[in-house]
Amino acid sequence: MAFQSPKGTRDFFPQDLAALHHIEAAWRNASVNAGFDEIEGPTFEHLNLYTVKSGDGIVSELFSFKRAGGDVDYALRPEFTPTLARMAAAKGRSLTLPTKWFGIPSHFRAERPQRGRLREFKQWNVDLLGVDKPSADAEVIATAIRALANLGLTHEDVVVRISHRDVVVSMLEKSGVSKEKMQIALTLLDKREKMSPTVFEEKLSEHGLENSSFTQFDGDTVIDHDELTSLQEKLSDWNISQWCKFDFTIVRGLAYYTGIVFEIHERSGDERAIAGGGRYDKLIEMFGGPSMPAVGFGMGDVVLSLVLKDKGLLGDGSEFLPRPDIFVISAGGDANNHLAPTVAELRRAGLHTRMTYRATRNVGKLLTEAAKTNTRFAVILGEELASGNVVIKDMDSGEQTEIALDDIVSHVTA
Amino acid sequence: MAFQSPKGTRDFFPQDLAALHHIEAAWRNASVNAGFDEIEGPTFEHLNLYTVKSGDGIVSELFSFKRAGGDVDYALRPEFTPTLARMAAAKGRSLTLPTKWFGIPSHFRAERPQRGRLREFKQWNVDLLGVDKPSADAEVIATAIRALANLGLTHEDVVVRISHRDVVVSMLEKSGVSKEKMQIALTLLDKREKMSPTVFEEKLSEHGLENSSFTQFDGDTVIDHDELTSLQEKLSDWNISQWCKFDFTIVRGLAYYTGIVFEIHERSGDERAIAGGGRYDKLIEMFGGPSMPAVGFGMGDVVLSLVLKDKGLLGDGSEFLPRPDIFVISAGGDANNHLAPTVAELRRAGLHTRMTYRATRNVGKLLTEAAKTNTRFAVILGEELASGNVVIKDMDSGEQTEIALDDIVSHVTA
Repeated sequence: MAFQSPKGTRDFFPQDLAALHHIEAAWRNASVNAGFDEIEGPTFEHLNLYTVKSGDGIVSELFSFKRAGGDVDYALRPEFTPTLARMAAAKGRSLTLPTKWFGIPSHFRAERPQRGRLREFKQWNVDLLGVDKPSADAEVIATAIRALANLGLTHEDVVVRISHRDVVVSMLEKSGVSKEKMQIALTLLDKREKMSPTVFEEKLSEHGLENSSFTQFDGDTVIDHDELTSLQEKLSDWNISQWCKFDFTIVRGLAYYTGIVFEIHERSGDERAIAGGGRYDKLIEMFGGPSMPAVGFGMGDVVLSLVLKDKGLLGDGSEFLPRPDIFVISAGGDANNHLAPTVAELRRAGLHTRMTYRATRNVGKLLTEAAKTNTRFAVILGEELASGNVVIKDMDSGEQTEIALDDIVSHVTA
Repeated sequence: MAFQSPKGTRDFFPQDLAALHHIEAAWRNASVNAGFDEIEGPTFEHLNLYTVKSGDGIVSELFSFKRAGGDVDYALRPEFTPTLARMAAAKGRSLTLPTKWFGIPSHFRAERPQRGRLREFKQWNVDLLGVDKPSADAEVIATAIRALANLGLTHEDVVVRISHRDVVVSMLEKSGVSKEKMQIALTLLDKREKMSPTVFEEKLSEHGLENSSFTQFDGDTVIDHDELTSLQEKLSDWNISQWCKFDFTIVRGLAYYTGIVFEIHERSGDERAIAGGGRYDKLIEMFGGPSMPAVGFGMGDVVLSLVLKDKGLLGDGSEFLPRPDIFVISAGGDANNHLAPTVAELRRAGLHTRMTYRATRNVGKLLTEAAKTNTRFAVILGEELASGNVVIKDMDSGEQTEIALDDIVSHVTA
C-alpha cells in the first residue's frame, strides 16, 4: 500500500524545509526590523468570514467542511486579511494605533494546481493599521523590498507595480466605460496580462467594451492624484524609488481594496505576482471594529521560490541545513560506554552533537559517516580515554589533535 | 457584525505568539542540538491515511472534507506519525539510517474542547528511524527532557512514565484476562486515571473483568524484561534516570505502538500528559516502506503551557516580545523630512527600528510613546540636524547625548 501527499500540497524533507525557512527568516527579519509584531490565527475560520466580505471570486477556491455531527460551516483560510480584520475588530478601540502586524501562516486554495499556484502554501502578510497617509503605504512597500533584498534580489530583478483604484476607474470612465460595466472592465483589466490579445478582444466584445478603453494603460501615465504624488515622495524618502513604478493595469481581484494597490513582479513578467496588496480602509469596520484605515500585502512562498531559483539565489536547500558542531564516534570496546554520556554532556553545553549508532571498530568508516553530516569536528573515543583524553579532528582542515575529554567544549567554541 | 474564532481554536496576538515561539524555540533547539532534521508535511492528508492504520479511536476525532466538486476525501491531520511514516516509506531504501526527524506542525482534533485539549494545537514530533535498540528510545526521551529543561522544568516538576506493551499484556494475561478481552482491558487501563474508581469498577463489571487484574499496577514492579533492563542502563548513561520511572499503567491509546511506550506528566498528575510516545516498529512497512524500527513522541503546546504557567515559568508572553533597538522621533519642522530616510538607513543596517506616525512637536509625548515599546534607545531628530547631529537617549539609564547622525549605528551596537 502506497500513500501520497494530496495533489497540490508538498512534503518538506529536511533540505526542502531548510529552503522554506531561509525565506521565512528573510520575511521575519524584515518585519521585526521594521517594528511589526507577529500574530497568528486559526488555520480554519467560520466559512461566512470569507463569503460575506471577500468578493465572489473567493468562494469556489475554498476547502470548506463541517465537524461530523456539527452544523457550523468552516473553511481552511485562503488568505489572512479576514482573520486579521476580525482580530483587529475584536480588540476594537483598545488597539494602540498604529498597529503593525505580520504573520507567516499556511493558506489553502481549492483551485487546480499550476506553476506558482498550489493548494497549500505559506504566505507572509504585513499590515499597518490606523494610518491613512501614503507614508504608511510606503513603509509597507519598503518592508516587502527589504525582505527581497535580504534574499539577494535587486531592483533589476523585481519591480513594485503601483496603482490606485480611483485612478483606474476614472481613466475607464473617461474612455466611455459606463458605471454598469465598470466591475467587468476592472476584472478584464486585471486578467488581461494572462490572456492572449485575441481572447481579450473576444471578451471585450462579449461585454460591449472597446479596446481603446484599455490601450490607454499601455503607455506611461502622468501622475495627477494627490495620494500618488505624496506616495511618490515617500518612496523617494525610503530610498526605494528605483524598485517602484506606477502602472494602472494593476487592479487586484479582491473586492475589499479601496485606494492604492500594488503587485511585485519579476521584471521579465514571466511568473505570476510575487506579492500583492493595497489599502483596505473599510474592512475592519465591516467586521464590527472601529473605522480604521489599513494597508498591507501578502507574499507567497511558491512564486518567490521560483524567482529565487531562476536567479541562482536558492539551491536545493541543503546549503541552509544547520551544520553539526561535533560528531562523536567510538573506536569500540570500553569506549562504547562513554558514547552516550559524552554526547549528553556536549548537548547540555549547547553544542549540535551527532553520534554514530553503528557497531563497528572501523574508525575510517565512522569518520566517513561523520563527514557526510558536514560536521565541523569529529571526536573519536578510543584508548586515549584511559588517560582522560580523546582525539578531535577538524573536518575542514583535517587536523587531528589529542585533547582532554573535559576540554571538547572549549576547543570547539574557541 | 462580529465574528469570532472557531470554538477550540486560538487567536495569537503578539504576546500570545511570543509565548508560543518561546516554547517552539526550546523544542527546536533541543532537536537540532540532538541532530534531528526538521521536516513538514501537508496540513491535510488523504482521509484513508488515518482510517486505515491509526485505530478506530481516531476516526470520530477528525475534521474531514472533500473539495467542492471533487470526490477525494481529505482530513486535517490529527497527529504527525502517519505523515512521517508516509514520507519515510516514499523514500524507501534510499533513506540513510538512522534517520532522525522532528517537526512542529499544527494538528487538529474535532473533539469537545476542554482543559488541555483544543481543536487546533501545535505539536512537537521527534522520531528516530532505523534503530531497534533501546539506546534509540533513551536518546529520544533525553531529547524531550532537554527541551523541558530548556524551559526551566526540573525532574521535580515532571516525570517520564515508561512502560512496555508486552509487559502490560503479560501482566494482564497472568491475572486471568483472556485474549478476547485484552484490547478492552488495555483501553480501560489507559483511561483508568481519568475515571472515578466507581465508574471504573462499573466499566469492569460491564465487560466481565476483575479489579484485581488492575490493582497489581499500583505498586512498584520488578523490571524483568531485557529491553527495559537495557533501557534502564541507557537512561543512566544519558544522565536522566532521575527524570524517569517505570509505570505499567501507561498503555497509550494508538494501535500502532509495538513495544516501549511512555508519557511525560507533571509530577502532581493534575494535568493531562505533556507528551506521549513509544515504538512503532511495523508502521513504516505498513505504509509501503521497507521494514524499519522506529521510536518517537509528540508533545503539544497546550498542556505544556498550562504546566509552565503553573510553575511560574511562563508569563503572558510579553516578556518574550523582541525589544526594539531604536525608536526615532521628530521634533517637527524640517526634521520630519529626515524621519523616513533615517529609519530606512537604520533598518538597512539591521537594527530593529521603530518610528512615530504622530504629528506633534511635543517631544515628551513622543518619548512616552517610545518608552511604551520598550525600546533600548530613542533618537530625536531636531534642530541639531543643522550641524549633522541628533540627540540619542538610552532608555534604560535615561542618559541623553548628542552624536553625529552617521554614528547612530555604532553607538547602538557598541
